[in-house]
Amino acid sequence: MSQIWVRPERVQQNPLFTDDYQAILSNDEIDTVVEVLGGLDPAYDLIKAALEHNKNVVTANKAVVARHLTEFTTLAREHHVKFYFESSVGGGIPWIINLERALRIDQIDSIHGIFNGTSNFILDEMTETGAPFDVVLAEAQRRGYAEAVPSADLDGDDIENKLCISASIAYDTEIKPNDNLLKFGIRNVTAADVSFFKKHHWVVKLIGRSFLQDNRYNFVIEPTLYASGKIEAGVHQNYNYVGLRGTTIGKLSFNGQGAGELPTAHALIQDLLDLELHMEHLNRAFQQPLELGNDSKLLDYIIRSEQDVAALLPDYEVTKEEADYWIVKQISASAAHKLIQQLSKTEKPLLAAISQQRS
Amino acid sequence: MSQIWVRPERVQQNPLFTDDYQAILSNDEIDTVVEVLGGLDPAYDLIKAALEHNKNVVTANKAVVARHLTEFTTLAREHHVKFYFESSVGGGIPWIINLERALRIDQIDSIHGIFNGTSNFILDEMTETGAPFDVVLAEAQRRGYAEAVPSADLDGDDIENKLCISASIAYDTEIKPNDNLLKFGIRNVTAADVSFFKKHHWVVKLIGRSFLQDNRYNFVIEPTLYASGKIEAGVHQNYNYVGLRGTTIGKLSFNGQGAGELPTAHALIQDLLDLELHMEHLNRAFQQPLELGNDSKLLDYIIRSEQDVAALLPDYEVTKEEADYWIVKQISASAAHKLIQQLSKTEKPLLAAISQQRS
Repeated sequence: MSQIWVRPERVQQNPLFTDDYQAILSNDEIDTVVEVLGGLDPAYDLIKAALEHNKNVVTANKAVVARHLTEFTTLAREHHVKFYFESSVGGGIPWIINLERALRIDQIDSIHGIFNGTSNFILDEMTETGAPFDVVLAEAQRRGYAEAVPSADLDGDDIENKLCISASIAYDTEIKPNDNLLKFGIRNVTAADVSFFKKHHWVVKLIGRSFLQDNRYNFVIEPTLYASGKIEAGVHQNYNYVGLRGTTIGKLSFNGQGAGELPTAHALIQDLLDLELHMEHLNRAFQQPLELGNDSKLLDYIIRSEQDVAALLPDYEVTKEEADYWIVKQISASAAHKLIQQLSKTEKPLLAAISQQRS
Repeated sequence: MSQIWVRPERVQQNPLFTDDYQAILSNDEIDTVVEVLGGLDPAYDLIKAALEHNKNVVTANKAVVARHLTEFTTLAREHHVKFYFESSVGGGIPWIINLERALRIDQIDSIHGIFNGTSNFILDEMTETGAPFDVVLAEAQRRGYAEAVPSADLDGDDIENKLCISASIAYDTEIKPNDNLLKFGIRNVTAADVSFFKKHHWVVKLIGRSFLQDNRYNFVIEPTLYASGKIEAGVHQNYNYVGLRGTTIGKLSFNGQGAGELPTAHALIQDLLDLELHMEHLNRAFQQPLELGNDSKLLDYIIRSEQDVAALLPDYEVTKEEADYWIVKQISASAAHKLIQQLSKTEKPLLAAISQQRS
């Protein structure tokens, strides 16, 4: 039998509806709870209670998974049930299952890509049409791609959740959203910025990237410039493009619908089918002791600022381009983000890494 | 226990080596045969015998799978063993497993992409460097990407095998390589062609595409032009980019290493792990009665020919561009390929479809 937990005022609308979650928990005919509320409260309590009542849980809720992956996984193991969350990252893209399958054989040392369709739609539209940020954001909201309060998409919080989940699985460690993870969103990107990038044959994308080196993991979310003609530059509209790099499989990436009703439902049903068919997902403990470090790779960055970036970064090779655009050579992500936080106190600056991707 | 079947002259090199296949077949401790010979003979006989002796078979051999998929699948079912072939298409890309997983929920009505890394390497190098075909082919051979006799890669036979396997699974029908499938390779692509395409901001790729419409399946392998900035145009070097379109999952594509020792071995071991873990692959009968039809979609084509294409195609809108390049508007793949076959009797013409891909 099935029941659907809803707000009290909706109970009358459908015989499957109930507002009595305790009744669901104590119903032995219900062996699986599908959580699609979003947000932490009350999702956290509902998932925890379901697992404690020996029910499998399938969820699409990236915020709660990113923060409680270890706890829920441990709880599921103790209660001999499953905790599956394919739809929490990449929407319809079979990302979690393929990451887990690759890990049956390979070590994965890098997770990277376009994890958020809304910000990709906004940057792509700005690039294609030259329109300003606010106009394109309004269009994204009109199409239902962006929420009325779109901060999770614009500021990288949504990507942070997805990259935490992916990297935790990849490195078998626990990475939760926190203030030490480097994150700079697209809120400050202007039509003039896009036009400047275009003139230099760059396309700007909001990228999440993480890689493992010497027991330290890098974790950065930032606008990134790809030479037009690179594959990331060809990811249009609200598509996602997410990838991994493994020992024997090499670089493997997935391009697809990262959100939307049908693709998300598809991923939820894949989890339910795996439960039904007893196809067990990879078992991880998330116990690998790893430290965060964002200094191990040097990149060139573009920084737009009204201030004298060369004077602020005396130890780096800094050249001024037209207007307020500065190129900073070979700087670590942590040093670049430290500067941009300082600049942000008095203006709305921009930072964008220049990708050195070869293929 | 394990044994490795080798040529008689190599038996002495390793205690696991044997040239006695009958001994393998009658050894009850061996429950799985991994076939990595390539070619039809003796691979067909070896696989058939293994299945008849109640052994699982895992193979990387696309030529034999494309021609005997139904037979091997039926034989495996009758003998209660498994026939898995992940590595036969897309190398390290988990293509078959994800196609099959999508089919647990969706109807798949289109299979398309860059299925051959060697031809992609050649076209990409020609585009990047402007070098002529023969020079780039020699470089591909030097790197080990292309065989000494490279016809399977250049003429589309390799793609034909992979598209037959993929479309047979997608549509649950039997599609074997045959002369009615439309196929035009890259042997005639010249540096002048690539330069002409570049001037029009096109990038040329060798594409396999199949789609289902009204109980007819289209099946075409041909050079295809993408506007630079489209994702297919960004697939560089010897990478593959293979995709499907499903009812709820939408468009889903995979970018990765389509060949090579480690990625291929990775895919073989994934199949072996699925056997070990009793993760059963999708069961298909390939019995759906479908007809081949390549007339249901009209595209614009570029044709390079010394002959008067406008006079040869009086029923179409044909315009002559510079030199010998003709644009034919809204023609079916079958009509375009019929013309190119006719032209090929007296010259080395080129045909390239112009993609209308929007994202």
